[in-house]
Amino acid sequence: MPQHIVRGFDVDLLCLATKIGEMGKLDRKQITDAVHALSAHDSALAEQVIRADDAVDALQRELEEKAVSTIARRQPMAVDLREIVGALRIANDLERVGDLAVNIARSVTELHGDSYSRGMISEIDHMATLVVEQLDRVLMAYAERDVAKALEVWRRDIEVDVLNNSLFRELLTYMMEDPRNITACTQLLFCAKNLERAGDHATNIAESVVYIVEGRAIPEERPKRDITNLSNEFQLAG
Amino acid sequence: MPQHIVRGFDVDLLCLATKIGEMGKLDRKQITDAVHALSAHDSALAEQVIRADDAVDALQRELEEKAVSTIARRQPMAVDLREIVGALRIANDLERVGDLAVNIARSVTELHGDSYSRGMISEIDHMATLVVEQLDRVLMAYAERDVAKALEVWRRDIEVDVLNNSLFRELLTYMMEDPRNITACTQLLFCAKNLERAGDHATNIAESVVYIVEGRAIPEERPKRDITNLSNEFQLAG
Repeated sequence: MPQHIVRGFDVDLLCLATKIGEMGKLDRKQITDAVHALSAHDSALAEQVIRADDAVDALQRELEEKAVSTIARRQPMAVDLREIVGALRIANDLERVGDLAVNIARSVTELHGDSYSRGMISEIDHMATLVVEQLDRVLMAYAERDVAKALEVWRRDIEVDVLNNSLFRELLTYMMEDPRNITACTQLLFCAKNLERAGDHATNIAESVVYIVEGRAIPEERPKRDITNLSNEFQLAG
Repeated sequence: MPQHIVRGFDVDLLCLATKIGEMGKLDRKQITDAVHALSAHDSALAEQVIRADDAVDALQRELEEKAVSTIARRQPMAVDLREIVGALRIANDLERVGDLAVNIARSVTELHGDSYSRGMISEIDHMATLVVEQLDRVLMAYAERDVAKALEVWRRDIEVDVLNNSLFRELLTYMMEDPRNITACTQLLFCAKNLERAGDHATNIAESVVYIVEGRAIPEERPKRDITNLSNEFQLAG
């Protein structure tokens, strides 16, 4: 936060930052629980994730109201305004991460009848760990207004994409080997896609941090390696 | 819009509404083009959709800036504030619809090597038509601040879900019949999912219209029939 005498405005900003911290903590728990429910076939835990989404949404609405009332009362300019707009954007991304965790939980509640290999689940677990790390780091970057840390998160997203791509290939192989795998693998494809998109939200948050601190967009193109849309890279047998 | 003497504030609101109209028109074109590119195997058109997404994003940023400067300058209360917050939420949904069109276009650029049946494509076409209709209607409801029309869109989303479910079942069947269909069908599954989510954004916009006019959330639970997560409803042979 910029160095100046504490004003009412700073108290408002602190309130926004606290809500973002709470949302981030909830998202972390939601993703971890959803993926744990997936690997443990625990539909009760999955139901809990689905219900807990209301809390994420409520926090976003509270933050939105606080942001709007702060703009109306304080009429901030330049860097102060960027703080508020940035907080709104970050809350928006965090709300979407919450939705993605719910999508994964929904797959779990319906997958319990189907079997899937430990190998596939362990890769999804690995992806989830990486995504949660990315979220932790970018929220740290936000708390410390640390552009270098934000850019590191932004660049590391490629690791999530690489994992998603290898999982995508593997799941297609399983489906081709045995049609009985198709239903379960389709759900796991969706789960992986949801985690990949959660990773993208971490990079959006990184962009918001840079915007808040420097008032500019990140100039480079983000390295992107999502080949789950590149089916022709994956040569099919037959 | 409420009946009162034209104020500077009304001019600001009109500017927000115009930008929302432009975003809606662009989204309509993006979805239509993306699905047309899919059915015509037209990767040049798909590339065009991918490039045009910047225009949607730029409109959202402009709307955001306009909204924030309006709040700061006019310090609106109650219904006027809801107008602005509602516009911000709607723009956010429209930006996401643009992203979903890009996801579909990405599938196209990579699918040209693979074949898929006319039947599957015609169902995706049908779904896209329905989603575009939903978007048109909800933007009309916004322009007219018509709660009844907004609620109609909100309730009709179930038709999109029903189409998505039948397509999901059909695609799984194709994959099971012939493993050579798996790569293409997986892409089409993602396309259908993207359209279904675009439909969900139309219902979110309907909720924002109700919020703007009545200052409340829609009390009922929305009827939801997404069984693409209900794999156990779909009994696998074998």
